[in-house]
Amino acid sequence: MRKFKGNVTTPQGFSAAGVMAGIRKKNKKDISLVYSKTPCVAGATFTTNLVKAAPVTWDIALLKNGLPKHAVILNSGIANACMGEQGVSDNLAFASVTAGELGIKPEQVFTASTGVIGQPMPMERIIPGIEAAVKALSDTEQGGIDAAEAIMTTDTVSKTIACELYLGETRVLLGGMSKGSGMIHPNMATMLSVVTTDVNIDEALLQEAVSDAVRDTFNMISVDRDTSTNDTFIVLANGLAGNKKIEKKDAAYEEFAKALFLVCKDLAKKMAHDGEGATKLLTCKVFHAKTREDARILARSVISSNLVKAAFFGSDANWGRVLCALGYSGAQFDPSKVDITIQHEDDFLDIVKNGMAIDYSEELATKMLSQDRVKYIVDLHDGYERATAWGCDLTYDYVKINGDYRS
Amino acid sequence: MRKFKGNVTTPQGFSAAGVMAGIRKKNKKDISLVYSKTPCVAGATFTTNLVKAAPVTWDIALLKNGLPKHAVILNSGIANACMGEQGVSDNLAFASVTAGELGIKPEQVFTASTGVIGQPMPMERIIPGIEAAVKALSDTEQGGIDAAEAIMTTDTVSKTIACELYLGETRVLLGGMSKGSGMIHPNMATMLSVVTTDVNIDEALLQEAVSDAVRDTFNMISVDRDTSTNDTFIVLANGLAGNKKIEKKDAAYEEFAKALFLVCKDLAKKMAHDGEGATKLLTCKVFHAKTREDARILARSVISSNLVKAAFFGSDANWGRVLCALGYSGAQFDPSKVDITIQHEDDFLDIVKNGMAIDYSEELATKMLSQDRVKYIVDLHDGYERATAWGCDLTYDYVKINGDYRS
Repeated sequence: MRKFKGNVTTPQGFSAAGVMAGIRKKNKKDISLVYSKTPCVAGATFTTNLVKAAPVTWDIALLKNGLPKHAVILNSGIANACMGEQGVSDNLAFASVTAGELGIKPEQVFTASTGVIGQPMPMERIIPGIEAAVKALSDTEQGGIDAAEAIMTTDTVSKTIACELYLGETRVLLGGMSKGSGMIHPNMATMLSVVTTDVNIDEALLQEAVSDAVRDTFNMISVDRDTSTNDTFIVLANGLAGNKKIEKKDAAYEEFAKALFLVCKDLAKKMAHDGEGATKLLTCKVFHAKTREDARILARSVISSNLVKAAFFGSDANWGRVLCALGYSGAQFDPSKVDITIQHEDDFLDIVKNGMAIDYSEELATKMLSQDRVKYIVDLHDGYERATAWGCDLTYDYVKINGDYRS
Repeated sequence: MRKFKGNVTTPQGFSAAGVMAGIRKKNKKDISLVYSKTPCVAGATFTTNLVKAAPVTWDIALLKNGLPKHAVILNSGIANACMGEQGVSDNLAFASVTAGELGIKPEQVFTASTGVIGQPMPMERIIPGIEAAVKALSDTEQGGIDAAEAIMTTDTVSKTIACELYLGETRVLLGGMSKGSGMIHPNMATMLSVVTTDVNIDEALLQEAVSDAVRDTFNMISVDRDTSTNDTFIVLANGLAGNKKIEKKDAAYEEFAKALFLVCKDLAKKMAHDGEGATKLLTCKVFHAKTREDARILARSVISSNLVKAAFFGSDANWGRVLCALGYSGAQFDPSKVDITIQHEDDFLDIVKNGMAIDYSEELATKMLSQDRVKYIVDLHDGYERATAWGCDLTYDYVKINGDYRS
């Protein structure tokens, strides 16, 4: 199993495109399309927000319709959320025009949108955009690069990754793209992600692998604790790798699930690192928790705390705020047994032992926290479960980006 | 019933002081004392953080010891949290020296601390500070002013209020002070507050009134969603008003409870308005929720959202973020029935009807949101319960204050 540079066109049989439709900005790719001529099974997860955008409602229904799937059409610019009946019809048109151009049914096309809430989709620009995207479909690396760029909003870099694994002699490929940045919080806030794979797998098992992977990757990142109306993660599997179909939870399933986890983790970390205004990636690993869920809650609480994030921006080893964030998380643990260590690459610095500060070098701590990627390792000495969460620093730029008029 | 300018020395029989002990800064009052020679009954609430500072643990025990109470000694500078055994003994000394100077038992003295976590209390400076505070005790308004100033940390203004009510012919007074600013979130994060009253009331009933008042005041404000290790709210009642003792939930109880609620609400709003870096007060009123608890959760979710707060800083009527924050709050409601109105003083501007934007003037919305005090009114059309929460904008200065080294 190996991760490498690649994207949604890396697996066999997938093509993609990203084009400029001028939805909200000129000279910005804003319509993205991922397509497999070969029918696919699909797995997906969506926002848990009660307020769901029209494309999310559409996709949830699609997932249950039993039809083979072929495509995901995405736009960046308009969220198509809180638009009532008009949102539903615009989204239907979004899927239908795509389906028409591809010669398939609308119910075989997933849709996803990100952008401003409460404004109508400019269909007069989107429809030509879809037509152009279908024409531009390409199975080259560039097709996938364009598709990834076309879903960016306040992202500063496009996010893609690929992974290969072998099931016996058969090479299986996965390729993914995502966009994130603001409004990211556990349970997938304004993130869109599509992963393609040529694995041959039963649809229910794919869904299980997707849900498992999301729990410890996309749901463990936070930029600002705001969960959006539009979060969507879709996996399409077209079976072209030609492996013996995965139909039970055997070694092949485990191997594939692990590869999917790696792809999701890579994309999740890239999203956290590229959080709005973020300058640094903060990882929190919680060890020896009573339950896995406690470990998740505690790790997320640390990387979600505004005070921890602001201190991280200032490269301040403010372990009191870390302990405090653990304490109010709602998870159970014994504060007098907590150890905290700062890690940067191969350097480890113990700063808290048994819930109290030990005599450490503030200078060294600050130096480590000034790095681009830093970990807080929290050992609870309270059980056998662990979890990891990823976040970023809270900066002036976060306020600037989100204080600006209708960003 | 009437609120007026006053403080903890306003009720009969209370004196107070605030002195400079040089705990962390020169020329900053940092030891605060509130005292009643007449024995008091007490009610209190504390942080729900699992990590509790030594003074919090002390106070929780005190509340149950059955002894009459006389004093609250507070310091700003050192939180005395995460200090293990040393924290416990330093806090005991904090109470004991105060008690010794006042000629009472340590178990009659509440303690409270705020400031940096994980550093020892400089007892060599604190003990002379306590002695100076006892000497400085004064029942004048100035005594209460000094006491309120001595608990400030990053607060930009000191927070005090008084209230009078009549039980029959008898005038009863309440006076309060608080400090807040950062780390403030539902369930009372780094806030210290002391309210004095000369009402004559049964101790269990006082506690009930305190818990009720806190639920819809101090627990409904948020600056940054971080709940501290030190939050403490103590009410001392010495009975000197001479009213017929309140011993059941009669009209007199209701009248007193209402006055206590007014005092707490005033202090809570002052804390939200003076949140770290805040420039404006944001109020969210939720009407017609299914349950009171749903209403509280929804109102808090709106004023806690970083995205709503940053948009408020930019005076942007980003109602999509408000709807979104309602949607992920965890409370139940029907998004398609939600109305949202912006209120500033006597001006009302409807911006969302049935979960969708209506045609409103962005210019007018921005003008209203530029004001110092603004309300989002959310009508769920889903039941009969309501709640109010108070917060502030998220600003560059919040990041600056909390990114600075060990603020």
